[in-house]
Amino acid sequence: MFTLYGHWRSLAAMRVRIALALKGLAYTERSVDILGGAQFAPAYAAINPQPAVPALVVDDGPPLFQSMAILEWLEETQPDPPLLPADPRGRARVRGLCLIAAADSHPLLVPRVRARLASQFGADEAAIAEWSRYFMEAALAAAEGHIARDPVPGDWVHGDAPGMADIVLYSLRAGHEQRGGTLEAYPCLARIFARCAADPRFAAAHPRRQPGAPAA
Amino acid sequence: MFTLYGHWRSLAAMRVRIALALKGLAYTERSVDILGGAQFAPAYAAINPQPAVPALVVDDGPPLFQSMAILEWLEETQPDPPLLPADPRGRARVRGLCLIAAADSHPLLVPRVRARLASQFGADEAAIAEWSRYFMEAALAAAEGHIARDPVPGDWVHGDAPGMADIVLYSLRAGHEQRGGTLEAYPCLARIFARCAADPRFAAAHPRRQPGAPAA
Repeated sequence: MFTLYGHWRSLAAMRVRIALALKGLAYTERSVDILGGAQFAPAYAAINPQPAVPALVVDDGPPLFQSMAILEWLEETQPDPPLLPADPRGRARVRGLCLIAAADSHPLLVPRVRARLASQFGADEAAIAEWSRYFMEAALAAAEGHIARDPVPGDWVHGDAPGMADIVLYSLRAGHEQRGGTLEAYPCLARIFARCAADPRFAAAHPRRQPGAPAA
Repeated sequence: MFTLYGHWRSLAAMRVRIALALKGLAYTERSVDILGGAQFAPAYAAINPQPAVPALVVDDGPPLFQSMAILEWLEETQPDPPLLPADPRGRARVRGLCLIAAADSHPLLVPRVRARLASQFGADEAAIAEWSRYFMEAALAAAEGHIARDPVPGDWVHGDAPGMADIVLYSLRAGHEQRGGTLEAYPCLARIFARCAADPRFAAAHPRRQPGAPAA
């Protein structure tokens, strides 16, 4: 049994939802109100000593934490269908593309960073939105640059089936779209994101589709 | 043959140096002056379309990029000695601990973020140092919380040999130490970092020991 601690707005929780759906695994999601600070409450610290979502509880072991580590765990324990290529260079490419979003962009946009920008520099909503767009565009440009230079045949980032890079880059796109970003500058990514949006396993994981999300 | 594109100051390049040393692999390092903006030059874009170090060139394939993806590639292609545990839950623990540093802390401290804090919010050196310390302490507290709650016997983060979490957390410590951080609040990590510092494979990878680093 899988219990996902997430939140409608969390792009990292979105990744885990998509991976579980691609693997065909049922789960229950519990919402941690990261916009209201519930990730800092003692009740959640008992789940994850890092005040962040997602965490994935599996049977009676310690909760798994960090979305990329959860995706790797799912890949190792539920290998079919695979989310990583079979060859090490392909796996390195996919993981590198994931990390452009999951490491070098998304952590700059999360509530604790937005709160710090406000408290330390007096950043208002408009300034935070500008900051967020800047780092999302940088990540999309980096991923597009890699994919355009070293393309792999197929409809998805790495071949003919969706995998880890599609999941993680599409989670970045969800935040980018929410901030009004467009894709003219990223033709490779635009093609892949259109495919993600049309796939019900990706679409059902989107922030807008989660309980608690504001009406469009 | 391995060619590492790094820089003395890069904590992400430091991780790759340690991993190569633990695996017993020889390499050549080329410095990309990330403090002077050389990562944005066309010559480097041909290596890595994302303007960041490290990149690892191996034989004639496209350069590998993103330090965690490089570490995973080294683990898959040069499995001895292992940097990850054998069991999936152990691997998830180690990867999660790595990502607390590699995703949720370090990307907030890199030159492009420091430059953005200065250009968008007028942050001076003192403000940037305060920002950096804040997010490094948060990451150390999160890692300490996990290690203290779910310890694994042994002298290192996960058993009796150094692995991926020791590498990545120690890279964070190098930045933390450089900013004057102390370890009183992190007794588990303090013990592990002392062991890292005493290991010549870790010590030789330290920013202070690289060509171009300022004299102490």
